[in-house]
Amino acid sequence: MRKIMPIDRVNELISIGKNKMYNPGEYFIREGEVPRKLAFVNSGLFRYAYINNKGGEYTKGIIMESNFIASYSAMISKSSSHFFIEALEKSEILEISYEHWLQLRENNPFWDKFLIKLLEKAFCIKEKREREFLLLNAETRYFNFLEEYPDLESRVKQNIVASYLGIQPESLSRIRKKANLT
Amino acid sequence: MRKIMPIDRVNELISIGKNKMYNPGEYFIREGEVPRKLAFVNSGLFRYAYINNKGGEYTKGIIMESNFIASYSAMISKSSSHFFIEALEKSEILEISYEHWLQLRENNPFWDKFLIKLLEKAFCIKEKREREFLLLNAETRYFNFLEEYPDLESRVKQNIVASYLGIQPESLSRIRKKANLT
Repeated sequence: MRKIMPIDRVNELISIGKNKMYNPGEYFIREGEVPRKLAFVNSGLFRYAYINNKGGEYTKGIIMESNFIASYSAMISKSSSHFFIEALEKSEILEISYEHWLQLRENNPFWDKFLIKLLEKAFCIKEKREREFLLLNAETRYFNFLEEYPDLESRVKQNIVASYLGIQPESLSRIRKKANLT
Repeated sequence: MRKIMPIDRVNELISIGKNKMYNPGEYFIREGEVPRKLAFVNSGLFRYAYINNKGGEYTKGIIMESNFIASYSAMISKSSSHFFIEALEKSEILEISYEHWLQLRENNPFWDKFLIKLLEKAFCIKEKREREFLLLNAETRYFNFLEEYPDLESRVKQNIVASYLGIQPESLSRIRKKANLT
């Protein structure tokens, strides 16, 4: 956390948060839940995923250590989360209630500036992903994924990588075979 | 603008902005340009659109009066815009340079809070759109579009509505015919 904020702010965040452990497959937020919390991922890995009406899964985001996790739209609008947040590895997080987070922002303008950086980053990631889906084929999206997250390939199961790329696991196998990655 | 901020702040924004007119088909930002400006749309209509490698267009957003327009990711990262912003109607905007905008934010914490609201709104719109593309068919997306923007149907050409829904104009015609909307 010290990489992204001064030590005083780290301590401030720790003072209002709770350390929690999540095992792989455990949910930080379930689909349908009205989320009242966010968290900083100290170690581990999470994903955001939707389930479609045919029961298929679509992984909309993979979030690594040193990032925040939240079902943000649902949290701020006090509505049900449309997606779930699941641990993919044994993970240690600092959980913060939304109320405490709002108080923090009231007390020090640092946190508004910090939130702007987080929202801008999330916005840029979403925009890039939208663009890649529109303009690039699955193969190119896969190579971009490998380049951007070089260590994720070994940490995430192939069916989740496929669902992140919006393709079937068989298509991912074909792409990997063609590129001699199997 | 008075609906979304106090009158003093409106005047502050007007004092650093320039009123400009755009005719339909004129570009506020071109693809490939490094954008150094944002704008408030006083009246009129704009769209954000990508051009794919086959020359096809994809309208990623339609922005009505009383909203801000910007190629935000490119502006904050000082990189080229991947999409263009085009006027769809005769439009009057208040153009603000990014430098002036940053100064405004430095001088009054109101603007950071205001920016958070804008980013949160943009984030929620993007998330909703992503979800609709993943989970709903074109027909349902079209009916949602009509419900959400009841007056846009008559203001925007059918081929642009189709490119916003991610379908061919012929598919939109079929959907409209089926629903007795033609």
